[in-house]
Amino acid sequence: MSQIVLHEVGLRDGLQMEKQVVPTAQKIAWGERLLASGVDILQLGSFVRPDRVPQMADTAELFQHFTQPGRKPASATLSGLVLNEKGLERGLECGVEMFCMGVSASETHSRKNTGMSIADATGRIIAMAQAAAAAGKRVQVSVQSAFGCGYEGPVPRERVLGIVRSFLDAGLRNLSLADTAGHGTPDAVEALYEAVFALAPGIDCACHFHDTYGLALANCYAARRAGVTHFEASVAGLGGCPFTAVAGGNTCTEDLVHALQRGGERREIDLAVLLDVAREVAACCGREMPGNVYRAGPIPEPAAAAGGS
Amino acid sequence: MSQIVLHEVGLRDGLQMEKQVVPTAQKIAWGERLLASGVDILQLGSFVRPDRVPQMADTAELFQHFTQPGRKPASATLSGLVLNEKGLERGLECGVEMFCMGVSASETHSRKNTGMSIADATGRIIAMAQAAAAAGKRVQVSVQSAFGCGYEGPVPRERVLGIVRSFLDAGLRNLSLADTAGHGTPDAVEALYEAVFALAPGIDCACHFHDTYGLALANCYAARRAGVTHFEASVAGLGGCPFTAVAGGNTCTEDLVHALQRGGERREIDLAVLLDVAREVAACCGREMPGNVYRAGPIPEPAAAAGGS
Repeated sequence: MSQIVLHEVGLRDGLQMEKQVVPTAQKIAWGERLLASGVDILQLGSFVRPDRVPQMADTAELFQHFTQPGRKPASATLSGLVLNEKGLERGLECGVEMFCMGVSASETHSRKNTGMSIADATGRIIAMAQAAAAAGKRVQVSVQSAFGCGYEGPVPRERVLGIVRSFLDAGLRNLSLADTAGHGTPDAVEALYEAVFALAPGIDCACHFHDTYGLALANCYAARRAGVTHFEASVAGLGGCPFTAVAGGNTCTEDLVHALQRGGERREIDLAVLLDVAREVAACCGREMPGNVYRAGPIPEPAAAAGGS
Repeated sequence: MSQIVLHEVGLRDGLQMEKQVVPTAQKIAWGERLLASGVDILQLGSFVRPDRVPQMADTAELFQHFTQPGRKPASATLSGLVLNEKGLERGLECGVEMFCMGVSASETHSRKNTGMSIADATGRIIAMAQAAAAAGKRVQVSVQSAFGCGYEGPVPRERVLGIVRSFLDAGLRNLSLADTAGHGTPDAVEALYEAVFALAPGIDCACHFHDTYGLALANCYAARRAGVTHFEASVAGLGGCPFTAVAGGNTCTEDLVHALQRGGERREIDLAVLLDVAREVAACCGREMPGNVYRAGPIPEPAAAAGGS
């Protein structure tokens, strides 16, 4: 089985959902520790209009900080989300290493988010992705609402695969499927990833789940079974909206790492550091976060002498 | 794939962990609605010493209520947990239809719970199970701490399988593996159930998970993949201990049903009734419960006209 790749998105997909604006110095402190824990990709923010999303107003500043020499492990990659050409331009100016951008597979979601149809949004994102790739950047293109939509309900699989085909035809082979509303179930997740890998065996295809209905980790394991190795997750399970009834955050990074390490994978990731950050996030947000392991404490490693299996 | 069987254990494994003693009339009201929802087996309580576990002091009374004619659907079964011969005797007197009893695969856990070694406890439980079967009752024997122990850590697989072999040799073919501490991970769960089914293909082997580290639903799907069809779960995710750091409850019944129904299984179970009970449990306990779906609200069924897939 290939090496698991962890993409920590809490500073972006998590904090953009919080009412409060977390100070830049606090984001830097968390970012430093998340990088020190050994996550592979750290998403620092999103290039959106600061008047609309003040939580992300310091994204360029964060990139300027972390792209200074010695500020991150050489193996780690800094990613940023862009929604449009203006955001791409800003990201190219401040050292983004990996650009993330996406198209919704729900017409309603696409029009609400971008004012465009799926077809138009797909064409635009492909052009942006090709421009970023031409600038020498890593690029990941995603299909949002790939497993269902909060507005439309079920999303036809063929529509998701149609967007995936468009990406592949454009030479884009680093993909992600995002379960924006949390509608995915393990069987559906495994089936959709199998269909994607059937289109393009061996590509990198990440997964991005929300725990709205309690299935984020179950869906991660289903995705892994289909061959997914790239996991997007948020420390403490950030990413839910505490001001609506639908409260599910992203897959919780440290819960996922705790589970994977129990199975012998990615044991070099420093779980204790992730748990420290999760506790600080909970204190900063002033509420109990969705993560389980930071509350229960991790299962102790068996003493070497105790052995067992 | 065989029909999923749901065993609701919240009134027992859930309420015994609560500090407050829920009034009998409230338990009856919840029990009636849980039965009306369509769960297959309802665990009403445990025959333990009322001075030690006052939460379970009315177990006999609950059986006397629900075994009156017309008080439950003909297809539903009422189960009760027994720990010793005295409990078995009391259960036989008040109409228990299915006796549940178990042995821990952890020596420390076994001695703390029963004062006996695993070997002695296994002999005792087998004798009790055979007595209950001889009295014409359904019997389920379980292995507790089957996936790890909060005191001992890892539990050797061979020890679990040794207890399973003892049960099978004694003619007991209705088994359950319980992840008492919540240490199971999907890969370990699937492997252990595969090993059990290799010993005795076609037996009924239930699963009982705790969500201490966020993996209860992931483990349910892993167990199902290995062939498990019997799921033990608690409404609202009852079963955690709110007074310790380790707060994980049982697999949450309505979250599991919501997920299964999304995949087309057990769609005749009345999810709305389960969600009502979960909300009442949360109100009664005075805190947010672990269940996700009762908080977020279920994913709406697509309108017939909308179709989609």
